[in-house]
Amino acid sequence: MPEHNAQLETDFRQFVKKIEDYKQALALLAWDSRTGAPKKGMAQRSEVIATLSAEVFALSTSEEMAEYLGQLREEALYATLSEVTRKTVDECHKEFERNVKIPKEEFKEYVLLQSQTETLWEEAKEKADFAMFQPNLEKLVAFKKKFIGYWGYEEHPYNTLLDDYEPGVFVATLDQVFAELRDALIPLVKRVTESAHQPQTDFLFHSFPKEKQKELSLAILEKIGYDFSAGRLDETVHPFAIGINPNDVRITTKYKENDFRVALFGTIHECGHALYEQNISQELIGTPLCDGTSMGIHESQSLFWEKFVGQHVGFWERHYDLLKQYSSEQFSSVSLEDFYFAVNEAKPSLIRIESDELTYCLHIIIRYELEKALMEGSLDVKDLPAAWNEKMEQYIGIRPENDGEGVLQDVHWSFGAFGYFPSYALGYIYAAQVKEALAGELPQFDQLVRSGDFAPIRDWLKTNVHQYGKLKQPAELIRSITGGGIDAKPLINYLTEKYSRLYQLS
Amino acid sequence: MPEHNAQLETDFRQFVKKIEDYKQALALLAWDSRTGAPKKGMAQRSEVIATLSAEVFALSTSEEMAEYLGQLREEALYATLSEVTRKTVDECHKEFERNVKIPKEEFKEYVLLQSQTETLWEEAKEKADFAMFQPNLEKLVAFKKKFIGYWGYEEHPYNTLLDDYEPGVFVATLDQVFAELRDALIPLVKRVTESAHQPQTDFLFHSFPKEKQKELSLAILEKIGYDFSAGRLDETVHPFAIGINPNDVRITTKYKENDFRVALFGTIHECGHALYEQNISQELIGTPLCDGTSMGIHESQSLFWEKFVGQHVGFWERHYDLLKQYSSEQFSSVSLEDFYFAVNEAKPSLIRIESDELTYCLHIIIRYELEKALMEGSLDVKDLPAAWNEKMEQYIGIRPENDGEGVLQDVHWSFGAFGYFPSYALGYIYAAQVKEALAGELPQFDQLVRSGDFAPIRDWLKTNVHQYGKLKQPAELIRSITGGGIDAKPLINYLTEKYSRLYQLS
Repeated sequence: MPEHNAQLETDFRQFVKKIEDYKQALALLAWDSRTGAPKKGMAQRSEVIATLSAEVFALSTSEEMAEYLGQLREEALYATLSEVTRKTVDECHKEFERNVKIPKEEFKEYVLLQSQTETLWEEAKEKADFAMFQPNLEKLVAFKKKFIGYWGYEEHPYNTLLDDYEPGVFVATLDQVFAELRDALIPLVKRVTESAHQPQTDFLFHSFPKEKQKELSLAILEKIGYDFSAGRLDETVHPFAIGINPNDVRITTKYKENDFRVALFGTIHECGHALYEQNISQELIGTPLCDGTSMGIHESQSLFWEKFVGQHVGFWERHYDLLKQYSSEQFSSVSLEDFYFAVNEAKPSLIRIESDELTYCLHIIIRYELEKALMEGSLDVKDLPAAWNEKMEQYIGIRPENDGEGVLQDVHWSFGAFGYFPSYALGYIYAAQVKEALAGELPQFDQLVRSGDFAPIRDWLKTNVHQYGKLKQPAELIRSITGGGIDAKPLINYLTEKYSRLYQLS
Repeated sequence: MPEHNAQLETDFRQFVKKIEDYKQALALLAWDSRTGAPKKGMAQRSEVIATLSAEVFALSTSEEMAEYLGQLREEALYATLSEVTRKTVDECHKEFERNVKIPKEEFKEYVLLQSQTETLWEEAKEKADFAMFQPNLEKLVAFKKKFIGYWGYEEHPYNTLLDDYEPGVFVATLDQVFAELRDALIPLVKRVTESAHQPQTDFLFHSFPKEKQKELSLAILEKIGYDFSAGRLDETVHPFAIGINPNDVRITTKYKENDFRVALFGTIHECGHALYEQNISQELIGTPLCDGTSMGIHESQSLFWEKFVGQHVGFWERHYDLLKQYSSEQFSSVSLEDFYFAVNEAKPSLIRIESDELTYCLHIIIRYELEKALMEGSLDVKDLPAAWNEKMEQYIGIRPENDGEGVLQDVHWSFGAFGYFPSYALGYIYAAQVKEALAGELPQFDQLVRSGDFAPIRDWLKTNVHQYGKLKQPAELIRSITGGGIDAKPLINYLTEKYSRLYQLS
């Protein structure tokens, strides 16, 4: 039985840190490419990114890594490792297995197909021509099925795909949780749509100078508690948050002159992501655990701040005057109540990224049901458009007139990202669960938001969510917070209560 | 006799490209650290830079590199290589030799001493206390002498140090050229200082809002021909230009509210560096040749644009109105002639970085003479302050009152950068030689500057200087441009003519 081998543990951690340092460099290269990098430099930039990425891949799948994992995963030794090292070993092993099980030639073919299909998708979407996209999508689905075969799966092939984005969450859970959510939302959406009481929204779309919007964004970030000494705000077409490490977490936003909501709520959303990354334990730096634990938990943090704080009525009781101060006269004759109703308008949309919090999850559930059917083989790619349109009508009450605004609208499938979509809805579900647990321990939650006293909320999130990084898997985190499993009820209650009130449903 | 081995050449170039890709990532990391990176991230950032730098060092001194160099430097094979590969081999070999000849332990000690001394220097300068700095400086000098022993030298030990910054330029040349320059400048400076005709300068120091200075800087960059699609302008405390590759060359500037000259001429200076890097042949990307050929030639390009264009009377005939447009009323009652005289004021200064083009080279020559004496052993570190003060009085006519404004003013020696200073003066000398050659082929030079038609000037510089990168060494480049060697006469003529005119010397 091997004793604790401190030198081996140190060497392994050093080896892993090198990979993580490369990843930090890659994160900066990505941030720069998406913010202010000069256009002409992009071709060279791609080569630099490719070189470093190849090195990360090579190290992650190297003989050296295999040896470390072989030794450290031996049961008796494994038990002597620190928790951080143990979970680092698990992460590295998972990554290793994923990467070495696919034959190199096949993977190369797949990568080539990905990039070809992404380009093809743009054109197909533009032309609303699914037939043009179909053969490539069929190949991508076939590849994914074959990869699932290499990786293996338990119970359902889709579980293996989920594992990439939401480790420890399975089809059995999603089926149950999504069905419950779907069945509650469909009638609620219908009643909201048919309500006679609808918001007036014209005042939202007046001109709000970009410079002023920027000042407002910075002011709000300051109030929420984004740490500017560990981050910065820039402007991009597609806003994002990126954590290079917990001490350097950058966000971007987009300013739309005639719709201030884009920058304001977008900034709060990215700030939610950033607060997560800024508050991961410093102890995890230099390990793959220094990251959000899943796409869904990450999204829950951005949605928590955007929806449960930024669209909270108390938030606007406090900040409506601030908004008026930065804007011109556009809100001078708008009551707080009318303003609040307007920014919480719910209206069925064909397009996922334009949809509101009430319908958003239905868009996701449609995609989940279709992806799962594709992977289990109960749906053919050629039948996707019809199935899509059917579900849209059934769940959201509107039907696309063409595939451009239907099945072709999202980029994800064009690069083979099956299993990704559920995380978006899980983000909402987790956020509502987190909010409920938090409000249980901080019963003055509404008052805190109303008084702009966000520190106790941030502290609670740091203690219960952020600090752990990947030390806890999503379901484990939810259980430690709520004492139970993944559950749609808090979200259903929140949406039902909020939209019944706003739309005066009886 | 080996035949041309195309595969070997390709493999070597691929290996070198990987190193260069890492260097591009390092350049971006450095740029970001010096511009907008969040403060709290700097500790982690240093570790990422250290990891990548260590990898570059490891690759540059690897067994693999040794094998490539061994094979490719074999005479018959070497002759079959392309010019770019051949010179890449030379560069890699030079780097390899430099790095492997110093025993690892000694080098580690040296690096530690460097960082300790830099910190110590700050304090010593602050307190004007040379005695505090002396023991460390003695150790650094001793290390450098020992390193010269490992590297070997021809004729003069200082030649080996020069080789780091100005390859192919030797003490014998510098002694002669610098002496000629010094002996011409000393009396000229004296006459200028004593002239009864002195400029009025008070109007230079009015408030010029930063935002307006920025707009002016951008306008001037546009006019000079800086390619914004291959670069960007940011703000930093210490301005610099950095070439990540020729398609991504960034510059920074500093805005001083009460002295617009800092940003304006600083921006033109950095633009000169940037034009060099933006115009290096694309063919050299991915090799160590894709860089300025020396510190001095690089400086010649920044000085050419700053001094020979930006301080040209014709430049202001054309742009004085533009300056007035961005500034408030500060120049409304100042004639062009008075303005021009003011921005070309020459006044002896104790501090190198505050000195003007007339006295600048004397500051450098003092440092060169002292460094050389230190390295050949004819001067002890303890005698530096006295020697410094003596030379300052003799050459520039003023004497420091303490070592803080004297021998301790520059950071260079604190990290052992002996051999670096000469490049600054060579920059002036080369610039004047380049200007003379250029004006020989473009006799309408003055008219081009006056009419703001910089394209022919840029083209000439690209053709004769920029495109080559490191394909030509400094002296070789000067010879190909002028037909002769490094020569102080063009600079002497330029300064004598200009300052005699400005200060009405008879």
